[in-house]
Amino acid sequence: MAHIELPEDIPGIRGLLNVNPAAAIPMKQLAEVLLRGDSTLTQIERELIATHVSRVNECEFCAKSHGSIVSYLAADDGALVDAVRADLISAPLSPKMKLLLTIAEKVARNARLVEAEDVEAAKREGATDLEVHDTVLIAGAFCLYNKYVDGLGAIEWDSDEMYEKRARMTADEGYFSEMDYLDEMGRS
Amino acid sequence: MAHIELPEDIPGIRGLLNVNPAAAIPMKQLAEVLLRGDSTLTQIERELIATHVSRVNECEFCAKSHGSIVSYLAADDGALVDAVRADLISAPLSPKMKLLLTIAEKVARNARLVEAEDVEAAKREGATDLEVHDTVLIAGAFCLYNKYVDGLGAIEWDSDEMYEKRARMTADEGYFSEMDYLDEMGRS
Repeated sequence: MAHIELPEDIPGIRGLLNVNPAAAIPMKQLAEVLLRGDSTLTQIERELIATHVSRVNECEFCAKSHGSIVSYLAADDGALVDAVRADLISAPLSPKMKLLLTIAEKVARNARLVEAEDVEAAKREGATDLEVHDTVLIAGAFCLYNKYVDGLGAIEWDSDEMYEKRARMTADEGYFSEMDYLDEMGRS
Repeated sequence: MAHIELPEDIPGIRGLLNVNPAAAIPMKQLAEVLLRGDSTLTQIERELIATHVSRVNECEFCAKSHGSIVSYLAADDGALVDAVRADLISAPLSPKMKLLLTIAEKVARNARLVEAEDVEAAKREGATDLEVHDTVLIAGAFCLYNKYVDGLGAIEWDSDEMYEKRARMTADEGYFSEMDYLDEMGRS
């Protein structure tokens, strides 16, 4: 049970976003811009940053939600997410992505740990200033989403199938429009 | 010097927000809604939550920026912020506010530390579900802002006077409109 009374018994961040609709708009818009807006990072790469940060923060709901999106987009049955979770260094990713994920992990643990050298290393492997900026911002945004979900004790979906169903919907329709489906889907 | 090249050498979060303007809009809108939108928590109370979280996260720029806003709004020359920083328990605040700040601090350190009992205690002292929700969301949002500023190594204002000048502007004009003053103020 969540720490506060929610309008509907909807798992995860979606139930919480109903509590203060004025705040929900920029929360959803930020996710949409960062994860699906114009970027030289692919949607898979950005969802992988979101998943990795959520895993570092031990936020089960967000890690499963965004891990399922990576799995759907990569069509790999969770192989990439599992590989990163097991060992970032040996995961099948470019050196640039490994260094960006390392920066994201530092942001999640303690952002003051990020050093100029971390950024220089990523840039030597081809990361642009904007990619570094967006990586830090995605990592920070997921600290917000993770803390929002866990600080209010939001409940989880009760089956992997629901994470997969929501993942397909979010990947295809986005973070903004999916809210229109709340009534239909939220209690299914 | 910041970890990435910034369009202008503007201190703190303001310089960073110029890097990806599409992301800046929801970032500013979220601050405006949470800190200045409709709420049964006063503007001083909400800025105090922002200041306390920024202090817990050791983000000097944000702690000074929002502490200066509390000081300006309370017209107390920083007395309230200093009292909370020295010792939350003996600070001149209502029991409700002390319990909300305690929840905010847990969100900043590790949101999974927040227990139903923490929320019940705040509610026994008069906090509503919405006030608890907004406290957790403000705390999470400032983890985002703090990590954004520190993860990219943003520079600080070089004088307390600049923090005070910006604080007056933000308190009076808001988080959205202040950006219009960037050219005028940012490099002063």
